[in-house]
Amino acid sequence: MFDLIAFDADDTLWHNMQLFVSTENRFKELLSKHHEPAWIEKRLFETELRNLEHFGYGIKGFTLSMIETAVELSEGRVTGDEVSRIIELGKEMLASPIELFDQTEETIRALAASRDLMMITKGDLFDQEAKLARSGLGDHFAHVEVVSQKVPDTYRSILERHGVEPASFLMIGDSLKSDVLPVLAIGGHAIHIPFEITWAHEEPEEREIEGKSYHSVASIGDVPALLAKLAQG
Amino acid sequence: MFDLIAFDADDTLWHNMQLFVSTENRFKELLSKHHEPAWIEKRLFETELRNLEHFGYGIKGFTLSMIETAVELSEGRVTGDEVSRIIELGKEMLASPIELFDQTEETIRALAASRDLMMITKGDLFDQEAKLARSGLGDHFAHVEVVSQKVPDTYRSILERHGVEPASFLMIGDSLKSDVLPVLAIGGHAIHIPFEITWAHEEPEEREIEGKSYHSVASIGDVPALLAKLAQG
Repeated sequence: MFDLIAFDADDTLWHNMQLFVSTENRFKELLSKHHEPAWIEKRLFETELRNLEHFGYGIKGFTLSMIETAVELSEGRVTGDEVSRIIELGKEMLASPIELFDQTEETIRALAASRDLMMITKGDLFDQEAKLARSGLGDHFAHVEVVSQKVPDTYRSILERHGVEPASFLMIGDSLKSDVLPVLAIGGHAIHIPFEITWAHEEPEEREIEGKSYHSVASIGDVPALLAKLAQG
Repeated sequence: MFDLIAFDADDTLWHNMQLFVSTENRFKELLSKHHEPAWIEKRLFETELRNLEHFGYGIKGFTLSMIETAVELSEGRVTGDEVSRIIELGKEMLASPIELFDQTEETIRALAASRDLMMITKGDLFDQEAKLARSGLGDHFAHVEVVSQKVPDTYRSILERHGVEPASFLMIGDSLKSDVLPVLAIGGHAIHIPFEITWAHEEPEEREIEGKSYHSVASIGDVPALLAKLAQG
């Protein structure tokens, strides 16, 4: 039924957001003598958004944003030791073990046995390749595309390159804004696997989803059954 | 004669190393009250090499390495203001205009008129895409591959994906280690355009080059003439 099935990676195959959240908690603790946690969180988020155009997505950009926020919030009184600790937080994130969601390994292995799978992930090339290697899932993906953004043109160009018609393409991921809506926009199919934490600016407006037709499952382990049902028509 | 011609980007199409060198000079000036320039340079280089495995190549990793070096060299006495200045240096690098080498635009435009060109560049996905966009050369490249390393397998997998035989592939770039030797290793062809500054650990050993057969031109403007000569046999 589908010539090509692609998965998002972060927060679809493995936990990602929780790594940012737990690092952010340690960052707030580190700066607790300067400010209240809620204020630190607000300022860090503002710095991240402001820096997206310079840094893109990824841990290195996030680390630079933490350092920048620390300087600002301490009114320049941040210590070398605190800056060191923040760089260390970034390196720990980069090296942290990949925690797959339940049933990810079995599901991906089973699907890969009968067709080529693709991973389409947004972020830092070096980080994403390193995570895929650490995840142990590398052998199951015939194609890996690391992209700097996920807009309709991104998907269009990937499908063209692989000679796949949008109508026979299925994208699976946790983000309505990045994995579902742009794929529907070019005439493809999508399965949404909602994840509990979503960055506010990754949420689409209600009206963007209205009337759109896509599938939704509670967890990645439910994907094969849905595919079987779709194949039966 | 060649089914696919690919160009490296940094220091092949446009200046890159000089941006790092000039930023490094400003960094040394910034820390001049703590240490001698030569010592700062040595320590920064050590930090960069040590961090390559965490950060990969690119400006964000370089900026984090500058901050780490500043903390170490000041024995923790670096000021918030100095840290801010370093982050600013990184952002200025990310936004700095692309300076093409002489004759790059004409050469690439002429070559692209009669065949599809590919860019194969190592580094940070977000940075490299942004640079290509700023360079004004984007429309001349039918394919762009941003890779995290340039080893024989990197080239093998790109050629497989595009259905090109190594024997009809030509790679053009400034780095013997990244653009020439790995391409020869898989049976492809290469043109070397030497550039005056090369990172020490990017230099191959003499014995690695010995007996290898590749072409060399002084500047990118000489490529079309060399290609014409090769086509005549």
